[in-house]
Amino acid sequence: MLHTSEGLPDKQSLQTAAVRIAAYIHHTPALTSAFLNQSVNGKLFFKCENFQKAGAFKSRGAFNTLLSLPEDELIAGVATHSSGNHAQALARAALILKTRAYIVMPRTAPKVKVDAVKDYGGIITFCEPTLEARETALQKVVAKTGATVIHPYNDYRIIAGQASCAMELLQQVNHLDYIFCPVGGGGLLSGTALSAHYWSPETKVIGCEPEGANDACLSFVTKQFVPSINPNTIADGLLTSLGSLTYPIILKHVNDILTVGEEEIISAMRLVWERMKIVIEPSAAVPLAVALSGKIDLKGKQAGIIFSGGNVDLNALPWL
Amino acid sequence: MLHTSEGLPDKQSLQTAAVRIAAYIHHTPALTSAFLNQSVNGKLFFKCENFQKAGAFKSRGAFNTLLSLPEDELIAGVATHSSGNHAQALARAALILKTRAYIVMPRTAPKVKVDAVKDYGGIITFCEPTLEARETALQKVVAKTGATVIHPYNDYRIIAGQASCAMELLQQVNHLDYIFCPVGGGGLLSGTALSAHYWSPETKVIGCEPEGANDACLSFVTKQFVPSINPNTIADGLLTSLGSLTYPIILKHVNDILTVGEEEIISAMRLVWERMKIVIEPSAAVPLAVALSGKIDLKGKQAGIIFSGGNVDLNALPWL
Repeated sequence: MLHTSEGLPDKQSLQTAAVRIAAYIHHTPALTSAFLNQSVNGKLFFKCENFQKAGAFKSRGAFNTLLSLPEDELIAGVATHSSGNHAQALARAALILKTRAYIVMPRTAPKVKVDAVKDYGGIITFCEPTLEARETALQKVVAKTGATVIHPYNDYRIIAGQASCAMELLQQVNHLDYIFCPVGGGGLLSGTALSAHYWSPETKVIGCEPEGANDACLSFVTKQFVPSINPNTIADGLLTSLGSLTYPIILKHVNDILTVGEEEIISAMRLVWERMKIVIEPSAAVPLAVALSGKIDLKGKQAGIIFSGGNVDLNALPWL
Repeated sequence: MLHTSEGLPDKQSLQTAAVRIAAYIHHTPALTSAFLNQSVNGKLFFKCENFQKAGAFKSRGAFNTLLSLPEDELIAGVATHSSGNHAQALARAALILKTRAYIVMPRTAPKVKVDAVKDYGGIITFCEPTLEARETALQKVVAKTGATVIHPYNDYRIIAGQASCAMELLQQVNHLDYIFCPVGGGGLLSGTALSAHYWSPETKVIGCEPEGANDACLSFVTKQFVPSINPNTIADGLLTSLGSLTYPIILKHVNDILTVGEEEIISAMRLVWERMKIVIEPSAAVPLAVALSGKIDLKGKQAGIIFSGGNVDLNALPWL
C-alpha cells in the first residue's frame, strides 16, 4: 500500500481499494427523507450500508484485505475473534473468494449472530466470553490452521476499504457540509476522514458515539488515548477501543466527536424504521441521533449520515 | 376518463393518470435480492411501494382521484371510512392539495393508525366498529360538510392511479414473465392487470391472497362473486370484498389468484426485513409468500413482486 510521508494510506491507495472491491460489494444508495430534512431544516443524505453485502460496511474492509493478501496466505484462510458484523463480513468474503474463515466467538453470542456466520460458511470456535479467552482461542486456531488474523479495524487495508463508503457518498452528493459517522474501533471513521480529506476537504467529519461508550470522544478531547472499559450501550457495534492506527488519523482529520444517550439512539432508530421503512441497527442510528440532537446547526446545510449496518435481532427490538 | 368499448379505463386514461400524479408521488425503486433470487432460481424485482408517500401505493389512487375532482368539489373536501392506508393516503393528499379529508374510523382503531391520519391533518370522526355504524357516520359527515366520498378501490380514478405502479415496474424491468400482486378490494390488482394488458400482454398477473381471506380467489375460480365474510388474517390490508368495478377487470385480465397461509406470510415478511433490510407490512408480504410457495415454477423466469406498503405497528410484530 502507498503511504503519505506520515505513513497514512494515501489518496491513490484509497482509490485502488475502491476499485479492487467494486465487483464484490454493493454501491449502496444515498437515500433522502422529506420528513427528516424538515426535522433538521437542512438536507440529509443517508448512505445505506445496511443494504451492503452481509448487512454492514464491514464487507468493504474485509474484501479489500482478503484481496490484498498474497495468494498462499489467502489459501490458508483468515481468522478473527468477533461476534459482530466483522465476523459475518469476513466469513462471507472468504466464502466468495473460495477460502476459509475461522471465527472465534464467545459461547454467549446470540444465536442469530452465530447462525449468520454459519450461513456464510464460517468455521466457528467457541470460547469463554472474556477478551483473554478469545485471544487465546484465536492463537490456537492460527497455530493449528496457519490462517492469517484479520483485525476488525486496526489495519490500513481495512481502513482503506471502509474509506470507499464515504468516497462513494461524496460522488453521490454534490456538496456535503458534514458527514456524521459512527465510531467504535474507528475503522469506518478514520476511512471516512481520509476520504473527506482527499476528496472534499471542506466537509467536516463528525464522529458519533454513545454516551455509554464515550472512549473515542474522551480520547479525542483530551488527546490522550482512553480505552473503552465496561461500555454500556445498545449500540453493540461501538463497544471497542480505538486502535493504534485509527486513533492518529481520527485526531488529525476528524473535526469533532459528539455523543448521544440511549433514548436518543433508540428513538432515531425507530424513526428510520417508521418513516424511511428501512431496517438499521442501533449503532447505525447513532449518527442520525447526533444530527437530530441540535448540537450542530444544520439549517440550510447538507449532511451525509452513514447508516453503518442493518443486522438486528428481530426478536429483541430495543423499544419493546 | 376515456374508456374502452367495454367501459374500462383505456390505455390513454392510465397514461394520463400517471402523468397527473407524477409530481406528487415517489417513483419507487425496483429492488433485487441475490438471496431471494436463489430461493426461487429466478429473478425477482420488488416494486417498493413501502417507500411510497404515506407508506403505501394508496397515495397513487388518492392523488389521481383528488386531482380529477372539479375545483368546487375539491375545495369542499373529501371523505372516507377506513382505518388503513387509504385513510392515511387520502389525508395526506388532501393536505398537500390544500383541502380537507374527513375520515370515519372505528373507535377501536389502533392508536398508531389514528395518529398517522392526525399527523396528515385528517379530521377524524370515531364510530362503533361495525360497517353499518361506519356508513351511517360517513353519511352524516357528508351531509354536514358537503365532502365527496372517495371509495378506497371501487372507483376507476382510483384504479387508474394504482395502475401507475405496475406501469412503472414494466418500464423499470426489461421483461417480466409474472407480476405477483396482493388482492383485497382489488384496486391495485385490477390496475396492475390493466397496465400489464396494455403494456406487456405477455406478462401473467397473479393475484395473491391470504387463505384466511380467500374471497377473491373463490370469486375468481367460481366466477360468482363471493363476499369477504369474517376474514381472519394478519394481512389487515386484504380483508375487504372485491368491488363491482374491480371484479370484472380481475375476471378478464388476471391470470390466476393463489392463496398462502399465515405462517408463510409472516415468514416471507420476516425474510424481507432480515435479508433486504426493508420494512414491509404483512399484506405486502403475501405476493412474496406466493412466489416462495413453489405453486408457480419461477426457474429461469423474471417476476415482479409488488411490496404494497410498509405501515406496521412496530410494537406489535407478528413473529413476537
